[in-house]
Amino acid sequence: MEPKPISPVRGFSFSAVAAQVRKPGRLDVALAVADRPALAAGVFTRNLVRAAPVDIAQMRVGAGLVRAILANSGCANACTGQVGLQATLDSTEAIARALGVEAREVLPASTGVIGVPLPAERIAARAGELVQGLAPERFGDFAEAIRTTDRWPKLAASEIAGTGATLLGIAKGAGMIHPDLGPEPPHATMLAFLFTDLDVELDALRAALIGSTDATFNACSVDGDTSTNDCVIVLASGASGERAHPRALAEAMTRVSGELARSIVADGEGTEHVAELRVSGLSDDEAARSVARSVATSLLVKTALFGKDANWGRMLAAAGRAGVPFDPSRARITIGGIEIVRFGVAVSAEAERQAAAVLATPSFVVEIELGGGPGKFSYLMSDLGHAYVDINAGYRS
Amino acid sequence: MEPKPISPVRGFSFSAVAAQVRKPGRLDVALAVADRPALAAGVFTRNLVRAAPVDIAQMRVGAGLVRAILANSGCANACTGQVGLQATLDSTEAIARALGVEAREVLPASTGVIGVPLPAERIAARAGELVQGLAPERFGDFAEAIRTTDRWPKLAASEIAGTGATLLGIAKGAGMIHPDLGPEPPHATMLAFLFTDLDVELDALRAALIGSTDATFNACSVDGDTSTNDCVIVLASGASGERAHPRALAEAMTRVSGELARSIVADGEGTEHVAELRVSGLSDDEAARSVARSVATSLLVKTALFGKDANWGRMLAAAGRAGVPFDPSRARITIGGIEIVRFGVAVSAEAERQAAAVLATPSFVVEIELGGGPGKFSYLMSDLGHAYVDINAGYRS
Repeated sequence: MEPKPISPVRGFSFSAVAAQVRKPGRLDVALAVADRPALAAGVFTRNLVRAAPVDIAQMRVGAGLVRAILANSGCANACTGQVGLQATLDSTEAIARALGVEAREVLPASTGVIGVPLPAERIAARAGELVQGLAPERFGDFAEAIRTTDRWPKLAASEIAGTGATLLGIAKGAGMIHPDLGPEPPHATMLAFLFTDLDVELDALRAALIGSTDATFNACSVDGDTSTNDCVIVLASGASGERAHPRALAEAMTRVSGELARSIVADGEGTEHVAELRVSGLSDDEAARSVARSVATSLLVKTALFGKDANWGRMLAAAGRAGVPFDPSRARITIGGIEIVRFGVAVSAEAERQAAAVLATPSFVVEIELGGGPGKFSYLMSDLGHAYVDINAGYRS
Repeated sequence: MEPKPISPVRGFSFSAVAAQVRKPGRLDVALAVADRPALAAGVFTRNLVRAAPVDIAQMRVGAGLVRAILANSGCANACTGQVGLQATLDSTEAIARALGVEAREVLPASTGVIGVPLPAERIAARAGELVQGLAPERFGDFAEAIRTTDRWPKLAASEIAGTGATLLGIAKGAGMIHPDLGPEPPHATMLAFLFTDLDVELDALRAALIGSTDATFNACSVDGDTSTNDCVIVLASGASGERAHPRALAEAMTRVSGELARSIVADGEGTEHVAELRVSGLSDDEAARSVARSVATSLLVKTALFGKDANWGRMLAAAGRAGVPFDPSRARITIGGIEIVRFGVAVSAEAERQAAAVLATPSFVVEIELGGGPGKFSYLMSDLGHAYVDINAGYRS
């Protein structure tokens, strides 16, 4: 999970400071700035309970042109009413002034504890330092500053096929991970920021963001809890002067977002295993997604994976409550390619023993076939063990 | 949670044996017999993946007249195909022969591990002993024999208002508890059996069962996982000769089923706290039920309760992803009567400290008001801690 060597993206620079938003002595405010107004698109949590920065960022991204992203950890600024809203406005205003741009060109994003207003004055006090520190190669500090319970910073990059342009992704997320992101209002905390120097149309940028998010961030879960603060924002500087087929952009975004989503699930609070669920044989992809989500969020499946137990009965039981029609007697399940269920019943104790050996590894594929239909969906899930309980039973204390 | 002294119900007798269905040396097969054919109604798991005994019991209960219930722990006989189906038929056939009744008058019910066929021959070998042991006062042994991970047997009783008739309830359940029971096919393992000596019409018995189940068993959750084997069956012997207003029967069934549901949640695997969520202010009761279910099954809410943390932000976040419209700025939350959220924001740190003291107690009420609408719903939930992980990461080993 160590990030590969990543190069700067033309047109962007980054910075971070320790502003003591919640705890002293660690980077907790991050700034990304485009040299010129950049094309921007965003998807935001569909949770009805949304943090102030989500409302503001969604409103501002609608204009399609953005100069900066101001992100903080330590405080989600959610459920903070008018006070929280004003704090978000004040913090982006302070950064805008230091940059010499308009506040409406600055997108806010916050992650951390719910119910406490953002200490905007601490961010404002460091605005000058943040701007002075901007450098194209400081994306690593940006990634560091948005970590909460993350064990490692999350970065990924890809070339955009057929061009000299690149795409850089930075994300955070480990708990409250069950993103439900859309162009209409959404909530959890997964934050992801994508930066490209491609020269692209706004419509193509938006379409690529929605499609790639749906197949990646919206197809992963740590704990089934959708946050109040989730967002994915993409900025395109155009600084490479390169143009691409829309499909090449969509593929690069799906690759980078997929890598970030896998890193988030692997870093899920207390996670020891990442399973890629491949559900197939349903009437359509939506039905397959419903079954995958039901299995991926089942506590009994998650604790069985923690116990390295090939407990396929729990998988079938979770599939059966998804509200999707299928014939259980046609069910087939494999773990790491080892078939443990055929025609809805156990294959052999020996197969289960072999599967248990696969479950002892950090990452594996579980295939669940439920008939002959064309519907399929792939979903990333984690196991759930004692460390998750420890982290979340004591989060605020 | 100690059962109160309970009297026998006229017309029924009970028995139990240790048949070594899974583990030696403990009661694991239970029999309840009506002196004469008893009126019967049942609701069964709506999980698509259903155990053989659920299919058989649902088919047989349709006739409306039943002589016996044969229940076992140690083996759910789910996902066992034709072999499991035959095993259920064989076991009820053996009991029917020993009783001198028809197999179609015997309702099977099973709970335990999924994927292993029922060892019918072990039950058949003890059929004579089971029948010889029948006695009106042995309902406690019946309750004992259906325990799996239950820490205590679950019994409740009530008089039926205005009559000399009584209602006895026996249940089991601690994990895979998120019942979704209906007159049409359903799956988890909660088993509940109700016995009354009231003289009642079959339609009234069925209506009372469906209504009382919806307000009790279908309104509780330990882990969000609906089982393949859940069922609630009620038998009415008529032996008291007493008749009652349908409402009196429905009230008694709701009281007894509610007490059993609370006992199941209190005994939820690793549970230390039972919270009664009272959600109100939504457009209708169904909307309130959806919000209650979303909060009650949120891992972050459950781990916060385990940590005795009045983390209302997680409650609001879980409410916000229920897909139900409400205005977060009108949200009000109380814990044990202490108001911690008003108009969607925190009341005070002092209020949260007081609420945390309530959360240290075994049982409390959480009220979540989300507006001025008439819709409300009450739901029982548990916390989730290390013991749940221990039990379920090692269940089959």
